[in-house]
Amino acid sequence: MKYSYRTRSTDCPYELAMGLVSKRWKARVLDVLSRGTLRYGDLKDALAGVSDKVLSSALDELTRDGLISRTAFAEIPPRVEYALTPQGEGLLAAMEPLRQWAERENGR
Amino acid sequence: MKYSYRTRSTDCPYELAMGLVSKRWKARVLDVLSRGTLRYGDLKDALAGVSDKVLSSALDELTRDGLISRTAFAEIPPRVEYALTPQGEGLLAAMEPLRQWAERENGR
Repeated sequence: MKYSYRTRSTDCPYELAMGLVSKRWKARVLDVLSRGTLRYGDLKDALAGVSDKVLSSALDELTRDGLISRTAFAEIPPRVEYALTPQGEGLLAAMEPLRQWAERENGR
Repeated sequence: MKYSYRTRSTDCPYELAMGLVSKRWKARVLDVLSRGTLRYGDLKDALAGVSDKVLSSALDELTRDGLISRTAFAEIPPRVEYALTPQGEGLLAAMEPLRQWAERENGR
């Protein structure tokens, strides 16, 4: 797996995993893509409130880290699709207990 | 549960959970305390490389967020002990699959 520079700076597995997805919107991108491949515009619509700058940066980093794939189709107009990779699916599954914990705690 | 201001700024459960522990050393503090109550000095020894400033800040935030408890004993010299709360234990347990995922991926 390809780790980013920032992520490589720790030997702690918790910090390693969280370094990949703790930046705002990244976990949500994985979550939305778990329902299926999406084009950029649809992804942005699904994440109400995100700016193009922040979303593009999140997508670039997730792609670089091997958690999502970016496929460009040579069509007119150009089409770009994002999808979860097996690594991204694995990470999202590993985050599910954390999501459940937060929803339980938030309800208190 | 008491959430910090920063953590409250999101409705996303992933971001909520990660906001509590994504800052460097915090996950490790929970991990080390899962083996038992520790005094400040012992905690620092267990986390080789952390500065007093960063560790104190991490402990303050974890205490404020209800994930660890801080008990001061009126002794001479003063004694302060840190321990996981049930909330902290729950969060650490919910992070275990994420830790396992990172260790697996890191081995590739």
